[in-house]
Amino acid sequence: MRTTAVYISTIICLLTSWNLAAFEYWQVLPKQPIIPASNPQTKEKIELGKKLFFDTRLSIRGDVSCNSCHNLAMGGDDDGAAMNMLGRNVTRSAPSVWNVGYMSTYFWDSRAASLEQQAEEHLLDPRIMAMQNAMLLESRLKNIKGYVTIFENTFKDKQISLDNISKALASFQRSLVVPNSRADQYIAGNKAALNDKEKRGYQLFQDQGCLGCHFGTNFAGPAPGPGLKMGDAFYELYPTIRGSQYEEKYDMLSDLGSFHVNLDPEHKLMWRVPSLRNIADTAPYFHNNAVNDLHEAVRVMNRVQFNYPITEEKVDDIVAFLKTLTGVYPKIELPRLPESDGVSLVQ
Amino acid sequence: MRTTAVYISTIICLLTSWNLAAFEYWQVLPKQPIIPASNPQTKEKIELGKKLFFDTRLSIRGDVSCNSCHNLAMGGDDDGAAMNMLGRNVTRSAPSVWNVGYMSTYFWDSRAASLEQQAEEHLLDPRIMAMQNAMLLESRLKNIKGYVTIFENTFKDKQISLDNISKALASFQRSLVVPNSRADQYIAGNKAALNDKEKRGYQLFQDQGCLGCHFGTNFAGPAPGPGLKMGDAFYELYPTIRGSQYEEKYDMLSDLGSFHVNLDPEHKLMWRVPSLRNIADTAPYFHNNAVNDLHEAVRVMNRVQFNYPITEEKVDDIVAFLKTLTGVYPKIELPRLPESDGVSLVQ
Repeated sequence: MRTTAVYISTIICLLTSWNLAAFEYWQVLPKQPIIPASNPQTKEKIELGKKLFFDTRLSIRGDVSCNSCHNLAMGGDDDGAAMNMLGRNVTRSAPSVWNVGYMSTYFWDSRAASLEQQAEEHLLDPRIMAMQNAMLLESRLKNIKGYVTIFENTFKDKQISLDNISKALASFQRSLVVPNSRADQYIAGNKAALNDKEKRGYQLFQDQGCLGCHFGTNFAGPAPGPGLKMGDAFYELYPTIRGSQYEEKYDMLSDLGSFHVNLDPEHKLMWRVPSLRNIADTAPYFHNNAVNDLHEAVRVMNRVQFNYPITEEKVDDIVAFLKTLTGVYPKIELPRLPESDGVSLVQ
Repeated sequence: MRTTAVYISTIICLLTSWNLAAFEYWQVLPKQPIIPASNPQTKEKIELGKKLFFDTRLSIRGDVSCNSCHNLAMGGDDDGAAMNMLGRNVTRSAPSVWNVGYMSTYFWDSRAASLEQQAEEHLLDPRIMAMQNAMLLESRLKNIKGYVTIFENTFKDKQISLDNISKALASFQRSLVVPNSRADQYIAGNKAALNDKEKRGYQLFQDQGCLGCHFGTNFAGPAPGPGLKMGDAFYELYPTIRGSQYEEKYDMLSDLGSFHVNLDPEHKLMWRVPSLRNIADTAPYFHNNAVNDLHEAVRVMNRVQFNYPITEEKVDDIVAFLKTLTGVYPKIELPRLPESDGVSLVQ
């Protein structure tokens, strides 16, 4: 991980020293994310993944589905739901699942290298879906005739396995693309796509330093591609500048980020850089949902990452720019889930 | 309420003594339920109600929507979810919302006379959506610009009010119709719609006595119409025959049903008769989710309501008939919910 961190630092130095036009480091959202060779997209797998995504029976008590915290009727996140659910002890915000296939690393602390790995971990995490083990989950789905048939028709090995469940979920998530934001239109060459205020905001976004981390396809650092393989972590120290009034106010120091994963002291307070796409639709902000308002999030970031002077007018301009990152959400038909035919499998 | 109970008893006596062909007391599901004059259906109101139905911001912590417990991806019920959610202390099963417009009375204990009244109560119930009062809910929605516009375009008084929220939710729920079950086809005259086993099951359903309560449009007693106005309660004693082994096993005596509403000793253990439409898709069964399996539910009902001898073969025939009551679910497009634009309203 240290190698990657160094690699990433080099990118940031280059960006900063060259001071190039920011959009050279941004790009119109590609039509689909990179698909791993080990899990090619198929229509059947995406459809199955959609059913599983909405199926509460993947949780031990049958009370939540993936969609409960990654709500596709909204910004693909939870509006605080995950941390607000009594009895679950979730301590981190659910990031948006829209455009998640363009990320190079998963979880706030960057502990999963792929969507498949992330899905497996969620299913078995005692605070989330809380299946004690793979067999319990598999046997529950094996009792649903409809799923038996669908898995048979979807996978060569025809098996209902944690591996196939995770693959289907990942395939569906890679289909969750929100294209054509006004920022995308601007990047593509339509200079009228942003108004003057938004253009000022874009320039400030670059000048204040935000671009140092929020570049690339997903405004979240480098996407996998030449020189960066899927799963290479990209994380930054937050807060970088210590001692501000925000540390206590927004509880910045109690969760140590990727340190909890690798116990490497250099990773204390290191966090994956979150995507800024559709950011206006994903309040509250930060790993712990501590900041309710996008204006305040910009103030906080400016203070604890750069500590450059900034006026309220400039904050407002940056927020105006950030709102142009909201794309056009595709329509989602609610799947019909196979029934267990007169029997409840949830106890 | 006593008057109604007597009225209903008369209907049952007539049914029993005439011993008429049961389907004369059943009917093909009408295209839509009776629409109250105080809340006419409009396309706009149904669309708004759908958004509200899926919107977790209607709950105090933003963690559940109506759909969390009345899941439209499945049988419109909760598969145990409501009672399984830690910290909520819900003690009763969430009945199916599909075809709910054909009921004449709402809640297991029959305490609401309309879907509108039921919606209001759910929104303010501290165990469910837990909004402390109407103003809190209204002010939350008033902070979502998209809703302000939609309410303006939907209601003459243009107001975001608990009354209008409940009306929109009720309108959407009245649109949730699941027609064309094989039983409907049979009732309509297609005698080939049921196979021999299912026909035997139907005859047993009548002979054992199930029809005494499970008749009418929704197989749940009389629907509103001539002689019965919306909100007239239809409830039955459960268990009727006391002393069986099931009382303790399935905890039949701790919740006293409509007695808790009116404190009338005659209403101890009185319950609204649940619909049998789509019953195979709504396990677990009974007000307390105590019975997991439809076969067992039939055994239990036969024992505690009639105590007639019944063989396992006959139970299986009745279950086969009950499974013909599953209709064709309409497609539901997931609504897109208006965003609060860079601010979280849930604390």
